[in-house]
Amino acid sequence: MNKQKRIRDYGIVIGHMPTGQNNALTDVPGVRVGHVTLSRGAVQTGVTAIIPHSGNLFRDKMRAAVHVVNGFGKTAGLVQLEELGTLETPLLLTNTLSVGTVWEGLVRYMLDTNPEIGLTTGTVNPVVAECNDGYLNAIRGGHVRPEHVAEAIRSAAAEFGEGACGAGTGMSCYGLKGGIGSASRRVSLQAREYILGVLVLANFGRLPDFTLNGRRVGERIEQLQRERGELSAIVTPLENKEKGSVIIVIATDIPASERQLQRLARRATIGLARTGSFLGNGSGDIAMAFSTANPVRHFETEDIVVQQEFNENRIDDLFRSVAEATEEAVLNALVCAETTVGRDGNVRHSLREYLEALI
Amino acid sequence: MNKQKRIRDYGIVIGHMPTGQNNALTDVPGVRVGHVTLSRGAVQTGVTAIIPHSGNLFRDKMRAAVHVVNGFGKTAGLVQLEELGTLETPLLLTNTLSVGTVWEGLVRYMLDTNPEIGLTTGTVNPVVAECNDGYLNAIRGGHVRPEHVAEAIRSAAAEFGEGACGAGTGMSCYGLKGGIGSASRRVSLQAREYILGVLVLANFGRLPDFTLNGRRVGERIEQLQRERGELSAIVTPLENKEKGSVIIVIATDIPASERQLQRLARRATIGLARTGSFLGNGSGDIAMAFSTANPVRHFETEDIVVQQEFNENRIDDLFRSVAEATEEAVLNALVCAETTVGRDGNVRHSLREYLEALI
Amino acid sequence: MNKQKRIRDYGIVIGHMPTGQNNALTDVPGVRVGHVTLSRGAVQTGVTAIIPHSGNLFRDKMRAAVHVVNGFGKTAGLVQLEELGTLETPLLLTNTLSVGTVWEGLVRYMLDTNPEIGLTTGTVNPVVAECNDGYLNAIRGGHVRPEHVAEAIRSAAAEFGEGACGAGTGMSCYGLKGGIGSASRRVSLQAREYILGVLVLANFGRLPDFTLNGRRVGERIEQLQRERGELSAIVTPLENKEKGSVIIVIATDIPASERQLQRLARRATIGLARTGSFLGNGSGDIAMAFSTANPVRHFETEDIVVQQEFNENRIDDLFRSVAEATEEAVLNALVCAETTVGRDGNVRHSLREYLEALI
Amino acid sequence: MNKQKRIRDYGIVIGHMPTGQNNALTDVPGVRVGHVTLSRGAVQTGVTAIIPHSGNLFRDKMRAAVHVVNGFGKTAGLVQLEELGTLETPLLLTNTLSVGTVWEGLVRYMLDTNPEIGLTTGTVNPVVAECNDGYLNAIRGGHVRPEHVAEAIRSAAAEFGEGACGAGTGMSCYGLKGGIGSASRRVSLQAREYILGVLVLANFGRLPDFTLNGRRVGERIEQLQRERGELSAIVTPLENKEKGSVIIVIATDIPASERQLQRLARRATIGLARTGSFLGNGSGDIAMAFSTANPVRHFETEDIVVQQEFNENRIDDLFRSVAEATEEAVLNALVCAETTVGRDGNVRHSLREYLEALI
Repeated sequence: MNKQKRIRDYGIVIGHMPTGQNNALTDVPGVRVGHVTLSRGAVQTGVTAIIPHSGNLFRDKMRAAVHVVNGFGKTAGLVQLEELGTLETPLLLTNTLSVGTVWEGLVRYMLDTNPEIGLTTGTVNPVVAECNDGYLNAIRGGHVRPEHVAEAIRSAAAEFGEGACGAGTGMSCYGLKGGIGSASRRVSLQAREYILGVLVLANFGRLPDFTLNGRRVGERIEQLQRERGELSAIVTPLENKEKGSVIIVIATDIPASERQLQRLARRATIGLARTGSFLGNGSGDIAMAFSTANPVRHFETEDIVVQQEFNENRIDDLFRSVAEATEEAVLNALVCAETTVGRDGNVRHSLREYLEALI
Repeated sequence: MNKQKRIRDYGIVIGHMPTGQNNALTDVPGVRVGHVTLSRGAVQTGVTAIIPHSGNLFRDKMRAAVHVVNGFGKTAGLVQLEELGTLETPLLLTNTLSVGTVWEGLVRYMLDTNPEIGLTTGTVNPVVAECNDGYLNAIRGGHVRPEHVAEAIRSAAAEFGEGACGAGTGMSCYGLKGGIGSASRRVSLQAREYILGVLVLANFGRLPDFTLNGRRVGERIEQLQRERGELSAIVTPLENKEKGSVIIVIATDIPASERQLQRLARRATIGLARTGSFLGNGSGDIAMAFSTANPVRHFETEDIVVQQEFNENRIDDLFRSVAEATEEAVLNALVCAETTVGRDGNVRHSLREYLEALI
Repeated sequence: MNKQKRIRDYGIVIGHMPTGQNNALTDVPGVRVGHVTLSRGAVQTGVTAIIPHSGNLFRDKMRAAVHVVNGFGKTAGLVQLEELGTLETPLLLTNTLSVGTVWEGLVRYMLDTNPEIGLTTGTVNPVVAECNDGYLNAIRGGHVRPEHVAEAIRSAAAEFGEGACGAGTGMSCYGLKGGIGSASRRVSLQAREYILGVLVLANFGRLPDFTLNGRRVGERIEQLQRERGELSAIVTPLENKEKGSVIIVIATDIPASERQLQRLARRATIGLARTGSFLGNGSGDIAMAFSTANPVRHFETEDIVVQQEFNENRIDDLFRSVAEATEEAVLNALVCAETTVGRDGNVRHSLREYLEALI
Repeated sequence: MNKQKRIRDYGIVIGHMPTGQNNALTDVPGVRVGHVTLSRGAVQTGVTAIIPHSGNLFRDKMRAAVHVVNGFGKTAGLVQLEELGTLETPLLLTNTLSVGTVWEGLVRYMLDTNPEIGLTTGTVNPVVAECNDGYLNAIRGGHVRPEHVAEAIRSAAAEFGEGACGAGTGMSCYGLKGGIGSASRRVSLQAREYILGVLVLANFGRLPDFTLNGRRVGERIEQLQRERGELSAIVTPLENKEKGSVIIVIATDIPASERQLQRLARRATIGLARTGSFLGNGSGDIAMAFSTANPVRHFETEDIVVQQEFNENRIDDLFRSVAEATEEAVLNALVCAETTVGRDGNVRHSLREYLEALI
């Protein structure tokens, strides 16, 4: 998709299912991703917007579900998403302390594009997820502004950057540079092919646990860092405890009910586990899934609505797709991210610097 | 407590349990409530802050739990509250579209009072709950500002207003003027008395359903309104559908585990039902409960911590207290609220105007 | 329906929605109810079977959902019902200590009618709910046998008894004789009428709390009992603590998703509250809902399945129907139940004995 | 512990945490395990009982929690366990269609040892978990009898068999012979050592997915089976679809609240994922955790109870322990299980037959 080298470019193939055209979330028709990247000195943060379709999301909501893998996190908007099973705004990602600001920016955007909200119809439920980029980013500074939301949404496209960009700019993963990563899988049902795509904001894990396609290589990377003198980078107290998080967004064009989407979201845990995670205490791990197939209309006029969903007996291939694409998306986040120097000279190295020595 | 006439001043006594000294949330020692009220023309909104104790809340967290009665709402901060069972900030209430702004203001307040957040320790989980005051308030205007959070917190006291003030300024309840209401109950355990207090932000229900201490008086009030020509007030489309919400905050000094607090929170539904509610679709009904008895220390140094909880076999009196105090708090919100004229000349009348004719 | 006098026959009308033809669960086309009643001396117990449709339930499963109002209960089968959103057996009710026996009987019945289970397809998920009839029934005796399950299923019909019969034989409610009760409501959607029916197994509440259509009459009944010398009945220690339960079964022919059914089930709490309950600790209160409209086929061959659900904006009438029908079903259980003398001479009086003095 | 060779005896060490003395669930002081094994021809099934402590479990309940990994299962007793956070009976495991029978047997055992149940106090909540052993076992035959429960309980000891015994007799895992497996880890807190033990009833997974300590060896084993002509075993339709399950029981002597135990239970998923599972649709995967440290007394006389729990900031070592011990317990189940021929000549081979070729 983008010109960054991804994990498959190093000959590392995750799982058995075929990928979508670009092996990315945006292989799902209509889905777009946009970034605002703030990267200058101690400011290493940003905003990422995921747009489920090109129409009016408030009027044509997506069926959606969430699974809280580990709830040490501040994601906003989940109460209504769970009750009604719908997503009615773009899904925004940012740093932990900017959730309120991005929420406010997203409300402004929704009010601007929907003059009836709060006037002749009800309000709107913004969904904003976050990870803590405080190791590289001066997170107390509040550098994300409400305007960045509309900017990220406007910039959204089928092609999008991975690694240290958007909300991923300042993120760390397995003690290395983390950020945005993506992957997708193709699933054949009833003589038609569907796509299931995953995007992660990866900011979790301790280096010794890092597992690359089944091989526990974290300790070997630590050894390489010692040999290269890289551990001389300033170690702040934050680094010693896992205070990470990971957001996993799953999109598909397969017709699916909220319950089915919730079951898919739960399989993201498998993908995380395969990269070495044990879901540490301080990590706010949230998986969200939506289907573009069955929009729910805000101004529905029919009393009885016809929906489609997939035959539950066919779900195993979808489960595999979620697990495989989540694992690969984390690896893409790691391998696409550039080495980054942030606040107080804190450094996170790119996985790329060690890959040759590992393969 | 305040000089407003409350429901008991009209001879209406809810339930059988004895009340606390002021029959209010702040009967629980250390709990304080503060308001910022914005009431001028089409701006009818505000902020309410509930402060669980006078110390540093981030360092000494309250055990807490939540029950989502009906999740058509935008409350932020519940994911972590459920995972860890703690409340580590003041609990803020405001209008629906201002959740992000208040979240941002609350983060600023927490950063100002805790220099280590995001620097040498993790981040913080603000809890912000809301109701939609869009019938009286020009909610699209975004009149709540981040600064109002610190102002509400600074103004917090054991004595606080009820009715149309703070976050309750623009709220409607059973087609009447709603807002902030409170009540409390005393519970005797082991030769000691404890307090269970409730505060509601009441913004739910249709007038025909309104039930006053077992009597379904809503239709009678409708008739009075017709006789008095009050229905000539402009009826916007919003009014015809229930798009309300209610937030119920339960505080107690009884030692309680998160699980026990969650069971208490679930009984708030009984109190709502007794005022006539059937938990309409559009209502975001959230009950939260915290205990001031067993603070959880952020920088705990002991590996094993001693806690207290109450004997579960004694829980029925607490269940009754929640049900009774919730019912009475809703009635206090209604009876304390002044008739209010808001945006587009929309009017909500005070229950007081009909009470004489009903009793 | 049956010849027993029901609450409406005493001029007491609950709510505003129109009832179904017989004001019973079985107004939902295809739904049938059967009882086995064991009533002789200290044995006061039984089995009730609810049959969602006349076909093969394992092959054509019902969409279903559950809400645990208060989980101090032993209902079996809920894990899978929640995961898959389907009910694939008749729904059985019995006394608490007989859940295993009835589970075994239900498995035998399902194996007999489905030779492929456990051989060429997977297993089956029996759903068995219970209340504790130990005040009137010698519950330790294990008088329910597996054979009673097939007997109850065979006897199922659109007409069925209420009060002290089937699983309701030994139940107590508000200190009076409880048991089986039912009611229904009609809902108009898209020029078609649908039915929502409720059946309760009522075994909860303390007499002083009992509320009859808004009037708290429990204390007046206590006074009548004192005047009539009825409290001389032996009071065992069990009686002093609420150790009840209530099972609420909601059926409808409205097309509904599992999520929508779960929202309906939650409104049963409102109906309980209106009869005076505050959901006491010892009460295992479980509400289950199923729709007969969208069967899920066990041997589905299509990959993508077409479903119907109702427009969520129309849900409020369904919420009201659940609340009203649950309240009325509890009252029907009370008013239909005969005064019963059980183990150790324990007595529960029928509400009928006091109704004249109350109205 | 037992004389069976376990996975460590083959030089395969899972994880980094130190093990308990016998690397088994029963390293937790007081915990015992007992089996009844039914193995003759087409009958390949049984019962396993886990006894949390040697006293009266109904009077001194264990704090407990459950996590439903994938709810395609029939475990009974979870509703009350979740509501009250306690386990008050031995925890029984058996085959899917025998849950009712074992429930009945467990009730009988509890009534025999607690004469007050159902007479002067409430009832009892039996917990019975299950997997489907229908590939090897003639599961429709109902060969487990209620009496087997007391027999399994009586036989419980600190030493217990693994592999094809008790409830594990007929189980399959990754297309190989599955069954009972166990492991434990030691955790140091406050100058004291605690034990966290895991027992699994392993009956899940497809052979190609099987992963041995990070190496995906399943396809290699399939190749060996082809070479050895072992696939000539009759393949029934059941085999082609994953219709498995896994029950994970976690015990610890660390003081822990129900909420903390629930967080531990969720980490069992990591251990499963590391053996290759992606949590297939048909698998009923249930994790339960209990602590022996803080018994909850049924006849508690104090109104306020003092409890201990661990400092949540120390939880990561416990999370790791759950993940590691679950992974190792699955491998112990596989490696201890004997090759078994069951109904219709169906065969499951022991992992042992391939280990030499794999290492």
